Amino acid sequence: MKNTIGGKSIILRLELQTEQIHFGQLITVITENGGDVIAIDVIQTGANWTVRDITVNASEQAQLDAIIDRMKELVGVRLVHVSDRTFLLHLGGKIEMKPKAPIQNRDDLSRVYTPDVARVCMAIHEKQENAYKLTIKRNTVAVVSDGSAVLGLGNIGPYAAMPVMEGKAMLFKQLAEVDAFPICLDTQSTDEIVATIKHLAPAFGGINLEDISSPRCFEIEERLRNELDIPVFHDDQHGTAVVLYAGLINALKVVGKRIEEAKVVVCGIGAAGIACSNILLAAGVRELIGVDREGALVRSNEYSNPMWNLYAQQTNPNLRTGSLHDIIEGADVFIGLSAGGVLKRADVQRMAARPIVIAMANPTPEIHPDEIEDIAGVIATGRSDFPNQINNVLCFPGIFRAALDCQATTINEEMKLAASAAIASVVAPQELNKLYIIPSVFNQEVVRRIREAVIHAAIQTGVARRIPREFRTVTNQ
Amino acid sequence: MKNTIGGKSIILRLELQTEQIHFGQLITVITENGGDVIAIDVIQTGANWTVRDITVNASEQAQLDAIIDRMKELVGVRLVHVSDRTFLLHLGGKIEMKPKAPIQNRDDLSRVYTPDVARVCMAIHEKQENAYKLTIKRNTVAVVSDGSAVLGLGNIGPYAAMPVMEGKAMLFKQLAEVDAFPICLDTQSTDEIVATIKHLAPAFGGINLEDISSPRCFEIEERLRNELDIPVFHDDQHGTAVVLYAGLINALKVVGKRIEEAKVVVCGIGAAGIACSNILLAAGVRELIGVDREGALVRSNEYSNPMWNLYAQQTNPNLRTGSLHDIIEGADVFIGLSAGGVLKRADVQRMAARPIVIAMANPTPEIHPDEIEDIAGVIATGRSDFPNQINNVLCFPGIFRAALDCQATTINEEMKLAASAAIASVVAPQELNKLYIIPSVFNQEVVRRIREAVIHAAIQTGVARRIPREFRTVTNQ
Repeated sequence: MKNTIGGKSIILRLELQTEQIHFGQLITVITENGGDVIAIDVIQTGANWTVRDITVNASEQAQLDAIIDRMKELVGVRLVHVSDRTFLLHLGGKIEMKPKAPIQNRDDLSRVYTPDVARVCMAIHEKQENAYKLTIKRNTVAVVSDGSAVLGLGNIGPYAAMPVMEGKAMLFKQLAEVDAFPICLDTQSTDEIVATIKHLAPAFGGINLEDISSPRCFEIEERLRNELDIPVFHDDQHGTAVVLYAGLINALKVVGKRIEEAKVVVCGIGAAGIACSNILLAAGVRELIGVDREGALVRSNEYSNPMWNLYAQQTNPNLRTGSLHDIIEGADVFIGLSAGGVLKRADVQRMAARPIVIAMANPTPEIHPDEIEDIAGVIATGRSDFPNQINNVLCFPGIFRAALDCQATTINEEMKLAASAAIASVVAPQELNKLYIIPSVFNQEVVRRIREAVIHAAIQTGVARRIPREFRTVTNQ
Repeated sequence: MKNTIGGKSIILRLELQTEQIHFGQLITVITENGGDVIAIDVIQTGANWTVRDITVNASEQAQLDAIIDRMKELVGVRLVHVSDRTFLLHLGGKIEMKPKAPIQNRDDLSRVYTPDVARVCMAIHEKQENAYKLTIKRNTVAVVSDGSAVLGLGNIGPYAAMPVMEGKAMLFKQLAEVDAFPICLDTQSTDEIVATIKHLAPAFGGINLEDISSPRCFEIEERLRNELDIPVFHDDQHGTAVVLYAGLINALKVVGKRIEEAKVVVCGIGAAGIACSNILLAAGVRELIGVDREGALVRSNEYSNPMWNLYAQQTNPNLRTGSLHDIIEGADVFIGLSAGGVLKRADVQRMAARPIVIAMANPTPEIHPDEIEDIAGVIATGRSDFPNQINNVLCFPGIFRAALDCQATTINEEMKLAASAAIASVVAPQELNKLYIIPSVFNQEVVRRIREAVIHAAIQTGVARRIPREFRTVTNQ
């Protein structure tokens, strides 16, 4: 599989003396150095000169550097400047706020602002639920981070975290028509984060917590879930868990095993590892063993991390001890949320028949898929350049679409399980195979199915404050 | 002047039996009852029936009620439902978040989100000022309220305040291309408001405080101004002051007086009254007397309100005492930010020749313009149905446009004075008269002139972190 994803791209602005160089020669130089010309824009043209923007892709930065060097040498070519497509896309931010209707005259002004807006304000003052009808609360989610655990970059702070949160807001809108707004907090104190989010909650129908480091993320989410009447969802935990379980549903079908009978090893018991374990326990896994640097977590041990003690209480029923290499023996499923390379081919060889390996460490998986292609039943990773990508983007747009549409007070375990099943269902039985267990993030069916399944689950568990029209007859039956 | 502004509007959905009633008859009934048919939409049509939406305006609610009653009686007409245009405009909120570019494929996804977004994050992590280039900070303002002093409605809380803040965000975008986001806080504690706004500041290039009650608004603004490096501007204070002073500049021209020689009485020493007084002192007013319920504020008295003690120190140089009716004697300018009807015709008669009366109490001015039309030099109010409306909408879009464009650290007194002069300048000398001292909020020249003047002032006072291109040669001279 040729990996062009994550390839580099630049835009060269060149002034060409057309008597000294032909455009075809130029393209040849770019191509010979490994560049792929994907767009040409003519900026200005004179009698014997022309200025053009040439967008060039390449798989390696070194190729682009070589192209830039060659441009500087060519006779008749002046390199005006080089732009980076990714940076260009970010200039001035990636999202904007738009009025839904124009204010064309004083009559419009008086309706959307003073004095007539006062009647709308009073309708909400008299009945607070009207905020869902008459304000953006109906369709708006806050994407909140403190920048403490951003992507694989670590604690880069609130300013540097913004591009990720803006990107998330774009995805919310494009995939599920949810209006999301990025809030990056200039504090990493648990108490201050909880207080700040509580204070700014009135405008929002849900809170998507993002890239907050462990263990603070647990307390922040739990306190907010208790104190707010809108859903609070830490995507790094629950989004990952929902998509992981969706993949596992289909992987188990491919290898012909039942979840209740599967022995599952989860490697890396941080925030995402705990959330993945919890959803699997809720889904019916009986033998689940967590492994971290200190080996298998077992309730006979005492850990300094209180989350581990709690975790050990609920897992490892047979009190297995030892390292990952010991524990992996006979396992049906490996789930990795740890570090690149910790799983070896020899480990996979000692797993049960048709082993499922879901290696989500980023950017380097716990084991490279090529190493075990011949012996694994199903392989999935967190990367887009291998088959079966476990990608949070499959979950958060749809699950919040559902939560907003039924004005859910929370996103509970039943709703998450429903979301997993809905994602898994997008891959039709006849399509299902070891290289296709999970749909693409661009599959438009994903959000639609999650929405339907999650609203049903919300209604059935009594957390929906509104029954959308198309669900009314169903529930009346 | 016929007041259709603030008039009522409804949409009637009617099912008509076309054999029993002609459409013309229906329109006649509406018109006879004082309604004005402004739009007709055909929703469905059958062999002998039709469903239509008829938008009807009227100046009084009673007329609309009468029309609704008549519709219920008419043979061949079924009233399906009645909608209110203002409420319809608010359904689901008035603003939305939009991606600036679509995410069409995996390549786009990798640029705006993981993995390639990491390079953009790191560019900001390495140099925090890059947030102005690579995030929405460059063009985004938070409109923050605690809902404690909304319009004339008082302390209606954060949920009910949202429609006003959303309306403000619409105006920011439509008038000045500023992306504004409404944040309504679920706390009225000064400390909590200050902490919350500090924590959410990284995403924003400016903070517009709105509808926060006095005296908390002073401390909140002052602390935030000291602790944040982006402009913090309480619009109820400073927006009002800027537009008031703009109006006064032109009013003084109309009556042929100089500001240094004008005796000014400010009635109502709340947040807006103090801000108006401050801008007038900065503009050169020498004799300024503040009056509240206890009479003229004078430094020989001790007040329980600490703002009043400070105010008395800076005003009333001749230590005048007494009620508004005493103090108004010989005044050139009356500025009212108090309550309806407190100023009498007899008071205005005792003012100096060609008195300027700016009566901004809402919804009822300190004196009705009709009462003094024959004796006042210039009259202005806060209302849109009289000439010379002092409307904050004239200031906030342009002043924030300027602050964002030059990455100002603050909005200082010089920038406010520049904004006032810019607004006043939009009314050309040959247009200026007692009925036209202030431009319309829809005059597109307003934002352009404010922007230019305020950026100049910011550069000259050293608070601009960026010199926009068109100002660069000017400052290099």
